[in-house]
Amino acid sequence: MSTISQYIEQSKITMNQEIKSSLTGKDIPDSLYNSMSYSLLAGGKRLRPILLLASYDTFADNSSKVYKTAVALEMVHTYSLIHDDLPAMDDDDYRRGKLTNHRKFDEATAILAGDALLTYGFELIASDELLTDEEKTFLIKSLAIASGPEGMIAGQVLDIDGETKSLSLEQLEKIHEHKTGRLIKFAIIAGAFLAKTSEEQRKHLDKFAYYLGLIFQVQDDILDVVGDPHKIGKPVGSDMANEKSTYPNLLGLEGAEKQKQQYEQKAKQALQLADAKESYLFELLNYFSKRDH
Amino acid sequence: MSTISQYIEQSKITMNQEIKSSLTGKDIPDSLYNSMSYSLLAGGKRLRPILLLASYDTFADNSSKVYKTAVALEMVHTYSLIHDDLPAMDDDDYRRGKLTNHRKFDEATAILAGDALLTYGFELIASDELLTDEEKTFLIKSLAIASGPEGMIAGQVLDIDGETKSLSLEQLEKIHEHKTGRLIKFAIIAGAFLAKTSEEQRKHLDKFAYYLGLIFQVQDDILDVVGDPHKIGKPVGSDMANEKSTYPNLLGLEGAEKQKQQYEQKAKQALQLADAKESYLFELLNYFSKRDH
Repeated sequence: MSTISQYIEQSKITMNQEIKSSLTGKDIPDSLYNSMSYSLLAGGKRLRPILLLASYDTFADNSSKVYKTAVALEMVHTYSLIHDDLPAMDDDDYRRGKLTNHRKFDEATAILAGDALLTYGFELIASDELLTDEEKTFLIKSLAIASGPEGMIAGQVLDIDGETKSLSLEQLEKIHEHKTGRLIKFAIIAGAFLAKTSEEQRKHLDKFAYYLGLIFQVQDDILDVVGDPHKIGKPVGSDMANEKSTYPNLLGLEGAEKQKQQYEQKAKQALQLADAKESYLFELLNYFSKRDH
Repeated sequence: MSTISQYIEQSKITMNQEIKSSLTGKDIPDSLYNSMSYSLLAGGKRLRPILLLASYDTFADNSSKVYKTAVALEMVHTYSLIHDDLPAMDDDDYRRGKLTNHRKFDEATAILAGDALLTYGFELIASDELLTDEEKTFLIKSLAIASGPEGMIAGQVLDIDGETKSLSLEQLEKIHEHKTGRLIKFAIIAGAFLAKTSEEQRKHLDKFAYYLGLIFQVQDDILDVVGDPHKIGKPVGSDMANEKSTYPNLLGLEGAEKQKQQYEQKAKQALQLADAKESYLFELLNYFSKRDH
């Protein structure tokens, strides 16, 4: 096992423990609690929390300071998945091989569990005793902007609007940059901010995160064409069948690979300018652009 | 027009202006923006923002400091109405004589507009230049707890669970205290906190807010029996027809009136102990317990 695989594995274990303990001792009605924890503990990759940790670990020691923020981020991500899966949106029955929240429980519960996770994410940061009020304000503002009507939700709206159209590469990038990119950017910037990087460094990390988000999406699209369904945990080929706007459908498989390499190059440049050439972030970049699930 | 009617009218005008301007200049996709502003501007009574202002005005001058927080509160309230009206929940076609959000637009848009208003509420407070970081943290934490899985959302879950049961007065109070009471409490406490009241005062105001919320609910239930449909803006008698657990169904009309008077007495006692016997809050209490719509 490579060092970075170990780092990812260890971070995931830490995060899963933190996520589990985040809901204990709360006075939440049973049905709501069950629905919230079902989706929170449904086997996510914990990509966003791990990126947040890695960003912090790249620039500072003792990452326990960022745990609550990382859990909050995973809650916001999880809420967005629950609502995206609803009948009125993607109408999905399964996610990661398990029933989606509204199929396991019911629609009303799923809507409320999503609402509750979003709200609780902000509460977690605002209640974190390891952070100063200034840090909390920065994080809450950044997370709200990243996930709100100018950020992730805008991406979801643009995605729905674009479903029936054939999109240009620019339009595709805009959707992904909002829908998935903004939370990835929050992960990188939040970690770097808490590690007391300079504004100049964070300017470059912002760029790095932009390309990292796009790399993640290209690879997702590529895996839907050439991936192993057992490793991914869902059938492949559905994007092409649905004539969905994806990188391979837009540029061909080879073109998508080339596009990914361009993004990689730019991401590495940005990382170098942020004084993080040899770092967890650098290794994660390589790892995620080659991932097979 | 009484002084308090004028105060309410003036506060409402101020709040409507603040709410209108809160979304301008933002880079929000058109369909999302339209859906968010439709419900925000659909003619609400602005009860919660007015209570927040009145609580501040009772103890301090220059209330412009609380405007953004009051708008954020109205956004959180509006999001909860949009989601409550959805087909999977109350399945309502009309609210305040206008089409509900999902009927005017569609379900996906309504879910996302609700999500966006909730998220943007937190952003508004976190970005407010008139507040210190300490004030922002207090407000965001309080609002998240009030509206989250231990607060308003718990109330909604308990309400759904209780629909098919006959409830005791205690159970009925618990539902209302969570579903509508917690945001009313936030309004009172947030205003008092920003006006720099003592913790002792806020302890009593917390009690005042508890009874105020219940008074509001009893009166709502009473109006559904004896109210004028033209003034209320919706048909009356539906609660009784649905055998819904309400104060009049549980205690009879006279019993409900008596219960309201008991709440009023306790609310006035709490107000006196908070050094606010003659205040906007005192007048609002009288006003709201006698309201006819």
